[in-house]
Amino acid sequence: MTDFTASHEALLNRAIEAIGARTFFSAYPESASPKVYGETAKADGDAAFEALLGKPFPFDDRHPNARLVGAEASPYGKPLGVRYPAAAIDTLVAASAAAGEAWGRASIETRAGVLLETLARLNKQSFLIADAVQHTSGQSWGMAFQAGGPHAQDRGLEAVAYAVAEMRRAPRAVQWEKPQGKGEPIRLEKRFTIVPRGVAVEIGCATFPTWNLYPGLFASLATGNTVIVKPHPAAILPAAITLKILREVLTEAGFDPNVALLAADEPSAPIAKDLVQHRDVKIVDFTGGPAFGSWLRKALTGKLVYTEEAGVNAIVIDSTANFRAMCDNVAFSLSLYSGQMCTAPQNVFVPRSGVETDEGWKSFDDVAKGIADAVDRLLADPARAQGVLGAIQGDATLARVKEAAALGRVVRASAPVQGLERSATPLILAVEAGEASAWREERFGPISFIVATDSTVDSLMRAESSIRDKGAITAALYTASDAVADAAEQAFARANVALSINLVGNIFVNQSSAFSDYHVTGGNPAGNASLTDAAFVANRFRIAQVRRMTA
Amino acid sequence: MTDFTASHEALLNRAIEAIGARTFFSAYPESASPKVYGETAKADGDAAFEALLGKPFPFDDRHPNARLVGAEASPYGKPLGVRYPAAAIDTLVAASAAAGEAWGRASIETRAGVLLETLARLNKQSFLIADAVQHTSGQSWGMAFQAGGPHAQDRGLEAVAYAVAEMRRAPRAVQWEKPQGKGEPIRLEKRFTIVPRGVAVEIGCATFPTWNLYPGLFASLATGNTVIVKPHPAAILPAAITLKILREVLTEAGFDPNVALLAADEPSAPIAKDLVQHRDVKIVDFTGGPAFGSWLRKALTGKLVYTEEAGVNAIVIDSTANFRAMCDNVAFSLSLYSGQMCTAPQNVFVPRSGVETDEGWKSFDDVAKGIADAVDRLLADPARAQGVLGAIQGDATLARVKEAAALGRVVRASAPVQGLERSATPLILAVEAGEASAWREERFGPISFIVATDSTVDSLMRAESSIRDKGAITAALYTASDAVADAAEQAFARANVALSINLVGNIFVNQSSAFSDYHVTGGNPAGNASLTDAAFVANRFRIAQVRRMTA
Repeated sequence: MTDFTASHEALLNRAIEAIGARTFFSAYPESASPKVYGETAKADGDAAFEALLGKPFPFDDRHPNARLVGAEASPYGKPLGVRYPAAAIDTLVAASAAAGEAWGRASIETRAGVLLETLARLNKQSFLIADAVQHTSGQSWGMAFQAGGPHAQDRGLEAVAYAVAEMRRAPRAVQWEKPQGKGEPIRLEKRFTIVPRGVAVEIGCATFPTWNLYPGLFASLATGNTVIVKPHPAAILPAAITLKILREVLTEAGFDPNVALLAADEPSAPIAKDLVQHRDVKIVDFTGGPAFGSWLRKALTGKLVYTEEAGVNAIVIDSTANFRAMCDNVAFSLSLYSGQMCTAPQNVFVPRSGVETDEGWKSFDDVAKGIADAVDRLLADPARAQGVLGAIQGDATLARVKEAAALGRVVRASAPVQGLERSATPLILAVEAGEASAWREERFGPISFIVATDSTVDSLMRAESSIRDKGAITAALYTASDAVADAAEQAFARANVALSINLVGNIFVNQSSAFSDYHVTGGNPAGNASLTDAAFVANRFRIAQVRRMTA
Repeated sequence: MTDFTASHEALLNRAIEAIGARTFFSAYPESASPKVYGETAKADGDAAFEALLGKPFPFDDRHPNARLVGAEASPYGKPLGVRYPAAAIDTLVAASAAAGEAWGRASIETRAGVLLETLARLNKQSFLIADAVQHTSGQSWGMAFQAGGPHAQDRGLEAVAYAVAEMRRAPRAVQWEKPQGKGEPIRLEKRFTIVPRGVAVEIGCATFPTWNLYPGLFASLATGNTVIVKPHPAAILPAAITLKILREVLTEAGFDPNVALLAADEPSAPIAKDLVQHRDVKIVDFTGGPAFGSWLRKALTGKLVYTEEAGVNAIVIDSTANFRAMCDNVAFSLSLYSGQMCTAPQNVFVPRSGVETDEGWKSFDDVAKGIADAVDRLLADPARAQGVLGAIQGDATLARVKEAAALGRVVRASAPVQGLERSATPLILAVEAGEASAWREERFGPISFIVATDSTVDSLMRAESSIRDKGAITAALYTASDAVADAAEQAFARANVALSINLVGNIFVNQSSAFSDYHVTGGNPAGNASLTDAAFVANRFRIAQVRRMTA
C-alpha cells in the first residue's frame, strides 16, 4: 500500500493558494513539445492508442463486467472498435457503495494524494489522451492535447484544491470550554467528521470528454464520494483511460478500485436516466444539452445536480481602436473547433448605423464583411484550417449548419474543408434584431449571427435579455469607451455571465483558465453550477460532529 | 447616510475567526442580569412590548400596506391584538426586487456593517424580543430571552461571518499574466463581482421565531439578496420587531428599507405557497414540518431551498458511571420547552436486559423509572416547572400528547402544570423495539419512548436506521465503554447526525452553540441544510467576472 500524500503535498498547497489568488497558474505544461514531454512521448502515445483499438478495453478484472458495449466512431473516419465492460445498474451502484466505505473514511489528505498521483499519471499519458479525445470529439490533435490533457488536468487539480480547502475550514477536533461564572467551565471534546454523500454519477459530453468531466469527477472523489462515470456514447475512450489510471492508483493505495466505475452505453440503449434515478445515487454532474439538463434538474429532487448546459453567447461591438485585430480575434473564436465549444460566440450585436474604428467609420455591412474576411484569411490554408476547425462531432450539427443558412442573409457560407469530410467552416448570417426566432435560440456548431441593432445601448439590452432567458457562458465587448465598458460590465453582471473586453491577439473569449476564470456562473440558464467555486464542492460532503463530555 | 462598517469590523473579524476555530465564542451575553443589560432593561422591554399590543404594528410608511392582518394568540392567554401591514404578493416581490438594485451592488463590507449594526440594536432590544417570543412560542421567559435574543443574534452573526468569508475567497480584482515563451506575456485585468440571486423568502416557525429565522435571513442579506419574511401566523411579532430595526438601519445607511419586508398572513388565508412560487423569488429558507418542507423541495426546482424539518432524535443508553446524573440530564432534555425543540430526544434505546451503572445493574424498568423519577424531581415545584416547560404552542401538540398515551405502556403520565392551562409535562412510554409504528414516527411535543432492544448493538442499529429513514437533528449516547463510543460515533456519522456522549450537568443534547456546533447536518431527512456551514451560504451569490485586455 502506497501513501501518495507526501509526494503531492506541495502542489496541493500551491493549487489551494492559486484558487484564492486567481493570478495565472498551471500545474501541467500545455506545450506538447518533446522538450517538455520527452522525445518519444508522441510516438509512445500513438502506439498506446493503436494498441487499444479493435478490442475489449483492458480494465482490471475487478470492474463489473456482464457484457461488452461500445459503438464509438471517429469523426475522422478511423475505425475504433473498442468495447467496454457493462453491468446492470444495481450491480454498478452496489459495487460503488461497497467501495465507498473505506474511501469515505479515509483522511482528506490520503484521498487528495490518490487524486494528485492520478493527475500526474494522466499528465504523462496526455498524448494517448489527445488521440482518444481527437478521435471521439473530432477536435484537432493540438486542441485535443491541450484541452483534453493538461488543461483538463488543471481543472481536475482545481476541483481537488477547492474540495480540500472547504473540508479544512473546520478543525477535525477541538476542546470547547464554556465559562460558568465562578464555577468550573463546561468542557466538551468535539470532533468534526467529513461524511460524503454517497455515490456520484458523472455524465460526460462528446465534445470535451475530459475537460468537462474532471471537475465533477475529482470534486466528488476528493470529498469522499465514489463515482460512476457515464460518458457520452460517442466519447467513452477518454473516460475509460482516465478511469483505468485512477483504478490503478486506487489499488496501489489499498482501496477498492470500484471507487471509480465506468457505466458505458450505446445510443440505441441509453442508461443515464435509470442510473441517476437509483436511490443510492446522491450526486449528478452533467454536461450536455438543455433538454436532458432540464429533466435532471426537475426529476431529481432530493439529489445534488450540477449542470452545464448551453446558451447564446454574445459579442457586442460598440467601437474599436484596432478593427483588423478585432475581426481576426472574433474570426478565430467563431472558427475554433467549428463553434462546438460551449464558450463559442453565437450572436454578434452591431449597430445598424455602424461603428467607429481606427480605420474610420465602418458600416454594419463593413463589420460583417470584416469578420467574414478574417475567417477566410484564417482558413485559407487547408492544413491550418483543419488544425483550427477540427471535425464535426455529431450528425445533428452537420444537419443544423445546412438548415441554418435559411435563417438570415448569408454573409459567409459554410463549406467542408478540403481533405476532411465531416467538417464545416463558419456560417455567418446577418439578421435584424427583430428576427429573434433566428438568433435567440441556441444553434450549436459553426453558426453565428451578426445582429443589427438600433445602438450599442440596444445591443446591450438585447444581449442581456437573451442571456437571462436562454443562458450564456461567455460574452465579449469591443469598445473604445470607458462608459460603454462600465455599462456592459453591469449589464452582463446582471445576466450573470463572464465578460471579456477588447480581446485581441492570442487570447480568446472561448478560453477559460483554471485557477483564475470561473467557467459558467451558475446564475443563468446555461448551467446551474460554476467550474469551480466553493458552491460546487461544499455540499458534496456533510459534517457529523461528536461532542463528548470531558472531566 | 451612515456607514456602519468601521464600528463593527473587529467583531466581524472575530466571528470569522470563530467559525474556523469552533472553540467557545459568543458575541451577545446570554445572561439577562441587570449588571449586563442595565437596571431598567427588563422594565423597558416590558413597557415596549405592552406599547405594541392591540394596535397596528408601527412600521415606517414605506412598507407596502394594502390592508392589516394578524391573528396571534399568546399560549399564556395574554391578548396580543397586533395587526401587520399586508399587500399583494406581486407588490411585495416588486418592492423587494427594486430595493435590491442598490443593495446588491453595495460592497461586502457595507452590507456586513448594516447587518452587524442591526444585530447590535437587536441585542439591546433582547428584553422586548423575549416578551414577544414568550407570548407567541409559549417558551418560558428565561428561555425566550436566551434563545430568542442573544443566541439567535449569535446565529445571525455566524451567518454573516460565513457569508463574508465565502465572498472574500476570491479577490475583487487581479492582474493576470500568462507567459508566452520569449514573447510578451498576455495580460488581462480581471474583476470578480459578487452577484446576488435576487429575492429570498424566509419562512419562520412558531416555536423559535427568531433563532430559526436569523441564519437564513442574515445569510441572504449579507450575500446581497433582499428578503421577504413570511413568519408563522402564530409568531409574527418577533419577526416584525426584527424587521423594524433592520429597516431603520437600512434607511440610516441610505438603502431602501424594502430590502427587508414582512409578508404576514393568518391561518385562514396562508400565502406561503403563492409567495415562494413567484418567478422572482430565487431562495427559500424554511423551518417547519416535513409535509410543507417536502412540498418545497419538490415543487421549487430551479430555486435554492434550505430546510429544517423534523426527525426522531435518539438516545442510546449502554452503561453509565453516573446513573443519577444521567437520568437528571435526560429528564431535563425531555422537559425543556415541553419537548417542542427540534433537538429534543424522542426515543431512548435501552437493552431489554438492563445496563451496568455506578449503582449496579439496572433493569430496563429501573432505567425507565429512573428517568421518570428525575422528571418528577425536576418539575416538583410548579414555578420551576413552568420555567422549564413553558406553555404548549399549538393545539395539535396538546391533542397529540393525549392521543399518544395509547401508544405504549405509560411510565410517566403527562399532566398540565399547576397555574398554566396550556401546559403538559413529559409523557414517557415504554415500548418494544418491534413496535416501530409507535416510536419510529415523529411525535412532536413532550412525548418520548423508552425502547426495549436486544442489546446496545441492536439499539445502535435501530437508532441509525430510524434516523436514516426519518431524520434526526440530535443523538446522544451514555456509555462507559470506549469501544461502544467508537461504534456509536461511526453509526451516527453514517446517519449524518450530531452525537453527544455522556452529557451530565448543565449541558444538554438539545443545545446547539453558534460558532461551534453545526445545527442539522443536511444529510438526513431532518433537513437539507446545516446552520451554518459553507454550503448554506456559498450558493446564495454567484460571481460574474470581467477580463479586460491591458496594454
